Amino acid sequence: MSLLNPTTVNTLRFLAVEAVQAANSGHPGLPMGAAPMATALWSNMKHNPANPNWPDRDRFVMSAGHGSALLYSLLHVFGYDVSLADLKNFRQHNAKTAGHPEYGHIPGIEITTGPLGQGIANGVGFAWAENYLAAKFNKADIKIVDHYTYVLCGDGCLQEGVAAEAVSLAGTLGLGKLIVLYDSNKITIEGSTDLAFTENVQARFVASGWDVLEVANGDTDLDGILSAIEKAKSTDKPTLIEIKTTIGYGSPKAGTAGVHGSPLGADGIAATKEKLGWAHGEFTVPAEVTAASTEWQKVAAENETNWLATITAYQSKYPADYAQWHAWQNDSLPAGLADITKFFAEELADDKPLATRVSSERILQKLAATVPQLIGGSADLAPSTNSWMKARGEGYSKTNPTGSNLHFGIREHAMTAIANAMYAHGGLRPYVAGFFVFSDYMKPAMRLSALMELPVVHIMTHDSIGVGEDGPTHQPVEQLAALRSIPGFLTLRPCDTAETAAAWVMALTQEKPSALVLCRQPLPQLAGTGEGLYKGAYILKEATNPATGQPDVLLIASGSEVELILAAQAKLLDGAIHARVISMPSMELFDAQPNAYKEEILPKAVRARLAVEAASPFGWHKYVGLDGAVVGISTFGASAPAGKVFEEKGFTVDNVVAQAKGLLS
Amino acid sequence: MSLLNPTTVNTLRFLAVEAVQAANSGHPGLPMGAAPMATALWSNMKHNPANPNWPDRDRFVMSAGHGSALLYSLLHVFGYDVSLADLKNFRQHNAKTAGHPEYGHIPGIEITTGPLGQGIANGVGFAWAENYLAAKFNKADIKIVDHYTYVLCGDGCLQEGVAAEAVSLAGTLGLGKLIVLYDSNKITIEGSTDLAFTENVQARFVASGWDVLEVANGDTDLDGILSAIEKAKSTDKPTLIEIKTTIGYGSPKAGTAGVHGSPLGADGIAATKEKLGWAHGEFTVPAEVTAASTEWQKVAAENETNWLATITAYQSKYPADYAQWHAWQNDSLPAGLADITKFFAEELADDKPLATRVSSERILQKLAATVPQLIGGSADLAPSTNSWMKARGEGYSKTNPTGSNLHFGIREHAMTAIANAMYAHGGLRPYVAGFFVFSDYMKPAMRLSALMELPVVHIMTHDSIGVGEDGPTHQPVEQLAALRSIPGFLTLRPCDTAETAAAWVMALTQEKPSALVLCRQPLPQLAGTGEGLYKGAYILKEATNPATGQPDVLLIASGSEVELILAAQAKLLDGAIHARVISMPSMELFDAQPNAYKEEILPKAVRARLAVEAASPFGWHKYVGLDGAVVGISTFGASAPAGKVFEEKGFTVDNVVAQAKGLLS
Repeated sequence: MSLLNPTTVNTLRFLAVEAVQAANSGHPGLPMGAAPMATALWSNMKHNPANPNWPDRDRFVMSAGHGSALLYSLLHVFGYDVSLADLKNFRQHNAKTAGHPEYGHIPGIEITTGPLGQGIANGVGFAWAENYLAAKFNKADIKIVDHYTYVLCGDGCLQEGVAAEAVSLAGTLGLGKLIVLYDSNKITIEGSTDLAFTENVQARFVASGWDVLEVANGDTDLDGILSAIEKAKSTDKPTLIEIKTTIGYGSPKAGTAGVHGSPLGADGIAATKEKLGWAHGEFTVPAEVTAASTEWQKVAAENETNWLATITAYQSKYPADYAQWHAWQNDSLPAGLADITKFFAEELADDKPLATRVSSERILQKLAATVPQLIGGSADLAPSTNSWMKARGEGYSKTNPTGSNLHFGIREHAMTAIANAMYAHGGLRPYVAGFFVFSDYMKPAMRLSALMELPVVHIMTHDSIGVGEDGPTHQPVEQLAALRSIPGFLTLRPCDTAETAAAWVMALTQEKPSALVLCRQPLPQLAGTGEGLYKGAYILKEATNPATGQPDVLLIASGSEVELILAAQAKLLDGAIHARVISMPSMELFDAQPNAYKEEILPKAVRARLAVEAASPFGWHKYVGLDGAVVGISTFGASAPAGKVFEEKGFTVDNVVAQAKGLLS
Repeated sequence: MSLLNPTTVNTLRFLAVEAVQAANSGHPGLPMGAAPMATALWSNMKHNPANPNWPDRDRFVMSAGHGSALLYSLLHVFGYDVSLADLKNFRQHNAKTAGHPEYGHIPGIEITTGPLGQGIANGVGFAWAENYLAAKFNKADIKIVDHYTYVLCGDGCLQEGVAAEAVSLAGTLGLGKLIVLYDSNKITIEGSTDLAFTENVQARFVASGWDVLEVANGDTDLDGILSAIEKAKSTDKPTLIEIKTTIGYGSPKAGTAGVHGSPLGADGIAATKEKLGWAHGEFTVPAEVTAASTEWQKVAAENETNWLATITAYQSKYPADYAQWHAWQNDSLPAGLADITKFFAEELADDKPLATRVSSERILQKLAATVPQLIGGSADLAPSTNSWMKARGEGYSKTNPTGSNLHFGIREHAMTAIANAMYAHGGLRPYVAGFFVFSDYMKPAMRLSALMELPVVHIMTHDSIGVGEDGPTHQPVEQLAALRSIPGFLTLRPCDTAETAAAWVMALTQEKPSALVLCRQPLPQLAGTGEGLYKGAYILKEATNPATGQPDVLLIASGSEVELILAAQAKLLDGAIHARVISMPSMELFDAQPNAYKEEILPKAVRARLAVEAASPFGWHKYVGLDGAVVGISTFGASAPAGKVFEEKGFTVDNVVAQAKGLLS
């Protein structure tokens, strides 16, 4: 017996429903409707429970993350490390089986999902990574990268804008190995999709360059689903398979919104068992399903064994390529990456003022040569964000699949979710780029990268009112606070080329997503900057009052405002006021230092503290306290030449000096 | 002569190009390509420069906000209050002619644009408002609301997800009076749209329930454009008119990305004048264009005069309806709205614990009866966000256009941008609702509502780790910091029903957008809560050390954590520690109080201060300083029953007590 049969389907349905019931929390509706497509897919997908990290496995994204109970049931039935006890413990404290699928939490989960729509963009990221790596490494005689990406989504995901962005891009890119299974049950939380979603989804996908297939009876037609999947695999476009299902199939509330997100109740489960002819007790995997799974797992393991033979052949015939593939796969970065900063110390001996976005561009060119697995691009702003790897040539396209400069189009949200999946896929180091103010569009996916601890690099330029004439819609104010408050996200706002180089090194050599927050306007090259960034904040220029052995006042700034506090320091010294200049490119890195270091930089005894940053003051009082002050921006910016806006908002040496003096009076 | 001729077109082109040149900043490409469609539209659109606020004017959204120079040129040529001097002052400090069009900055700008894609959602909001108000107020014999909404967008807007969301919804709603002019020039900043945007846009719109028209030669075919617009007006579906144009038409860099966002230069302008046969000097409006505009303005004024006669007839025949329409139009709220809080004081005499989302639902029902122009809904979460106005019945649909409960579908970003335009349209008080964690998806449009000062109400429920089992993807942590840091946005996190009522009143009676941040779990009704919210923070329960006449420690909390610090106060008092309990539902309101009040609540002398909030501590040090502490969440949440997560993260009476004691040791 194979796993492709109604018994497996019902096993999955009842495991999921009973897990939800045990938790008294969760979503039974999708699992019951989507169990058939999941069965058809998983029993024919290329994956090996004995090694969930097999590099050439097919990728599966549960974009409808609220269907987690189905995913955990699949993992259990197919032999992954999820036990019946784990299912019984669904959504409980420290359970493997969290409320929504969490990447890194248990093997077999490719990406964290739940926030709707992003899973479809993740799917595009996985498929894009596969296609690029395949083009890069496969040979005419040996293919080592050759897998599909499957996404299971519902009506909800397809209404989200991020999904539409990703779908349009996937069509342009011709990602033929991306297959989306659309659990089309016409029900969302408020009721029928007729209320708000009457578009012709299939026609929309065709318009976006996809192939479209339909399975009319997704509740029982396993063969129909399987043959649609097989057909989808054979085309050179991405494919949407619309599979018509009944939400909560078999349950008393089948086909209604009521079954979406509430447990069925004991009576509901009993009635459903009656209806579906399921005579088993709670949390049962019938022996024939276990037996079939055991058989299937043998074949799955053999598949990987065959692939291992392939990779061995590849290694022997193409040793250099293999070495590179292997290094990429292990996320190995070149030794001595940190020397990039030294390289720049030499390279920039001319001390020419540069916008940090331009500094970043120069560093990126060096990195492009040093870190071959670097891949990235911008949401149609490469020339402005200085994010193009020049020596890599033409961007990725259908006809140039080895291009590592990526054109995301004007789709910030999808771009970011795609980059997350490119990293999660393995083998690549993705970066994305955009105007900092539009990090607002990217935030939902940045949050997930932080939750997943994926070191995606976000090049965010045009970082303040220094944007000038484009005005308040394009001038970030609160975006630094927004990023700094994301748990596990690293915000870096360097003040010159040396700090920008250090920021790039830091971004690439740790395990959090990061943003390089870079300016549009030229900044001078300062003395003493650079590796101090690694500690988040450091004394750039000291001035000590001989009477106290301490500075009178602490001046703290990041990015383009460091230059300003340096000038203020000099002017204050003329008035015999001793100000310490502290460059603080990263609050997060500073917060992670030992207390002794923090005390060294910000001595508790010195309460006259002034932070200067062309952004919302929100968050700065952690460093300046009740007795300090912040020169920041509590309003929106303004449309005018940058110098004028800085002046209007108080970013002048005179104002900084006056504010510092005010703290001492 | 009418304004519909090539001379007007070229006038607009050169005014725009010369404004950009004078500023040495801005975008000449779109104005030159889109001047013909703008001319055809504006010379036939219903609007009256003598009264930019005519309620029944057609609405125009420059979704491609970087085309601001074209918009300002239109305003000048058509007789609005924008002078040649203003055009010459484009993008300068305090100029009327800001870098991107800013609502409220000068008359004739319907909405702030620039962040791409949102303008299309704004268009949907304008058209939806019109259709609702028309259904509500028009009579078989007299129509007082009867106008169109036009959006001008480019390839950029159409790639953004928010636009796709709005397009899909507009199709479902059948907003026949929405007409989008698509400036299809196939160029974005990185180059040809072939790089990232090869979808069949027309087919996508058809799939979404739109009519589609095309003008093959948008560079010169004014009659073709006009007849397409006329045709679009006659259908009962929204219409996309794809108008093929040449970016930077007539200039040396026509048809290339190089002309998108850089001034042409003196030579470029000279060459363009040569090419287009324009013999005029700088900033010239030829006499015949001025004359034609004067004629056109007479007709425009007559149109409004005719409408005024209609409204007078309406007033006399339907005085009650007129009175209501007039009140709505003037944004008049019922007197005594604040009594809602009193109503609840009586209503909730039973003191039953309630989640603030449920409190909000009860208040909303009262408001639905009191504020008839209230209109709103949720991104498919009405049952969970408790945001349905029950007495208002069935939601808005094609067949029920007087429905004021709105089904936005799972489209948070478009929902928010739509609500912005509904308010900007006039006559309505929109609210939107969603899970707080997904305010991340809404943020880009919330920012614009703050910039525009539109008092849209955002009902944000499931506001913390109290979400419980759904886990970290659904548990907000940093969202409070994100909203609090937006300039001009009002964040309200009430602790019980009385504060929730006060929060609703505050949200409706001031001029900022606001978020009601509400919890999922039941909270007790506390004594002394309510109108103190109006000041942002207040002493809920005092405890004074007789020795000092001051409290020993200040405990500050918002929302669900107020209950916790009250319990901690009692326990501390057992140990003879006097803790003041401060409820701080709104940092923004508190910051706006006079210093004397701030000192009264948070006396400078008392440095032992503990803030307790189930969210990122980011931002709280403004109130607790260097000597205080925050019980907050610096990581992500966890998937488990809510009580367990609160305990794990330190939100227990014992921990609060221990932390408070720690401050005193």
